[in-house]
Amino acid sequence: MPAAQRIGVVVGSLRRDSFNRRLAQALASMAPDGWALEIVEIRELPLYDQDDDGSPAEPVRRFKERIAGCRGVIFVTPEYNRSIPGVLKNALDHGSRPYGRGVWSGKPAGVLGISPGALGTALAQQHLRSVLASLAMPTLAQPEVYLQARDGFFAADGGIADDATRRLVQGWLDAFVAWVQQQADA
Amino acid sequence: MPAAQRIGVVVGSLRRDSFNRRLAQALASMAPDGWALEIVEIRELPLYDQDDDGSPAEPVRRFKERIAGCRGVIFVTPEYNRSIPGVLKNALDHGSRPYGRGVWSGKPAGVLGISPGALGTALAQQHLRSVLASLAMPTLAQPEVYLQARDGFFAADGGIADDATRRLVQGWLDAFVAWVQQQADA
Amino acid sequence: MPAAQRIGVVVGSLRRDSFNRRLAQALASMAPDGWALEIVEIRELPLYDQDDDGSPAEPVRRFKERIAGCRGVIFVTPEYNRSIPGVLKNALDHGSRPYGRGVWSGKPAGVLGISPGALGTALAQQHLRSVLASLAMPTLAQPEVYLQARDGFFAADGGIADDATRRLVQGWLDAFVAWVQQQADA
Amino acid sequence: MPAAQRIGVVVGSLRRDSFNRRLAQALASMAPDGWALEIVEIRELPLYDQDDDGSPAEPVRRFKERIAGCRGVIFVTPEYNRSIPGVLKNALDHGSRPYGRGVWSGKPAGVLGISPGALGTALAQQHLRSVLASLAMPTLAQPEVYLQARDGFFAADGGIADDATRRLVQGWLDAFVAWVQQQADA
Repeated sequence: MPAAQRIGVVVGSLRRDSFNRRLAQALASMAPDGWALEIVEIRELPLYDQDDDGSPAEPVRRFKERIAGCRGVIFVTPEYNRSIPGVLKNALDHGSRPYGRGVWSGKPAGVLGISPGALGTALAQQHLRSVLASLAMPTLAQPEVYLQARDGFFAADGGIADDATRRLVQGWLDAFVAWVQQQADA
Repeated sequence: MPAAQRIGVVVGSLRRDSFNRRLAQALASMAPDGWALEIVEIRELPLYDQDDDGSPAEPVRRFKERIAGCRGVIFVTPEYNRSIPGVLKNALDHGSRPYGRGVWSGKPAGVLGISPGALGTALAQQHLRSVLASLAMPTLAQPEVYLQARDGFFAADGGIADDATRRLVQGWLDAFVAWVQQQADA
Repeated sequence: MPAAQRIGVVVGSLRRDSFNRRLAQALASMAPDGWALEIVEIRELPLYDQDDDGSPAEPVRRFKERIAGCRGVIFVTPEYNRSIPGVLKNALDHGSRPYGRGVWSGKPAGVLGISPGALGTALAQQHLRSVLASLAMPTLAQPEVYLQARDGFFAADGGIADDATRRLVQGWLDAFVAWVQQQADA
Repeated sequence: MPAAQRIGVVVGSLRRDSFNRRLAQALASMAPDGWALEIVEIRELPLYDQDDDGSPAEPVRRFKERIAGCRGVIFVTPEYNRSIPGVLKNALDHGSRPYGRGVWSGKPAGVLGISPGALGTALAQQHLRSVLASLAMPTLAQPEVYLQARDGFFAADGGIADDATRRLVQGWLDAFVAWVQQQADA
């Protein structure tokens, strides 16, 4: 049996019990056959400083290697102040440098998020799309998924409790995997 | 010889001598073999009013038909007040309605623009990309091209005078055509 | 008794029964003493064409005059394709031209919207803010109000039915009027 | 003589010889009488993690205190991947938390940037404005200043070498100080 193809999942929040981290874990359990979703951590990355480009810290090297080994990347992110968290942008900046040696270019991307508010990270997602375009990442345009966190959103086993919501997210993930294949086959 | 495949070009300015219209015309003359670029006019479209969805005006019907017949769409647009012109957004709105009967979804898109200022329509282009994503149009992410209009930008025959700039735009157009094929082959 | 000070209200939808038009009307009935909110219509404006700058159509002249006579402007807008409607941007473009003779600069602005979806026009509002900044309109930053249209949102008399929502909108309007005064006193 | 009123300056780049840091220093030397511009460093801030809200690290406490003591804040930032650097957004996130105890709200803000490219940080600035609006910071709308870094941009004494550019930046700074006073007087 061939090894599953890897899709990296970058979570925009460092909080241990983050809704978005739990969503990423739920997502991982929903991966279709032949695909494996793996969370790529950003917690150990230093603040990006161009002066370090010549001798990147070990966590930077590791982060870039892991992203480079993925067939696609899913960003699961909260919204902070109507944008993406600084910690997520910091990871994107690290992965894009030094000039000419970034790891994002050409990698298919998907965007997802959950928040306590009704807006469901819509503004963070839209801004993230602009950044991903500048990184030359072909990004799944539709469907968009905006999730509102409520008590009981996650079942005891970590999955998405509500049937309709779970189907929505499964549909999104299937569309994303098809998108990754489409970009690769071309 | 098989008919050329059509790519629609929508110009964001109504001004007769618009730099962007002239850029669209120059672009049309640079189409690779097997492809034809055709400007799809937006000047006759009424202001979009949802009350007319049931009985669209003739120019609306025609506009949607022409877009529907294209393999991809290039938007060549100036920047008005740090965004796209209202007339261009009006055309996008018409093409997206009524719900479920829009013509944009799935059609590969490209974004280009020229302006007298140094920013070269960068803010208009970025906003347009967000709108195109919401319309489910897979949009060429890179290269981005920002052109500054100067005297002598266009040669007497309507082409782009400067060699380096012409090669830049030709490179963009070739990348766009490859993008259209890639999306279609998938 | 001195004449009330006028605040213009521009509605982003042309639909007769538009939720946003009804919200604008409800808002007008909530104006504090000494202030009058008047809807400034955009329906008769032609598509903006720079070639007409020298001889603007009568509706353009009238629109600009009415805006020029207002102490501030409230934009009440739906979201079309994750941005503001083209018809609203068209009105903004008209009011900004010709160069040096626009009517927006320095006029305090507020942004509001209602939509059937949960996002409540958040993406339209954010984009509109960017445009208003480029027009040099000092725009009330907080509170933001995102309203979701539901059956029974409006009472029989046209007001906002739900008490909490009405207080939210009244609070927003009071903050906006204070904002207009603050900018003027300076 | 009364103490000068303080304006904080936050630089979006950590690079030692950053153009934007040098621009911030040049700006500080141009402060009008009665005002002092002080760079507030962001380099020691940890990655924001909501789990630390209860016991913020010392650099976080210090950063928030210094911002709280300023009459206004100027952001001088490069553009990374068509947005603001993650390190700057990280500082904005820190200053905004925990909920109800942020330091940004109501503080007048200004946005400036310099980059090697022709776009001069236009896309970073526009995005930053959206974030500042969500933080309830009244932000100077016009003039906008987009600076392109070239050899010799800075004179030997650290000032801006070119006369016209220096006047442009001085005009911007004067407008910003007037903006700070206007917001405060209200």
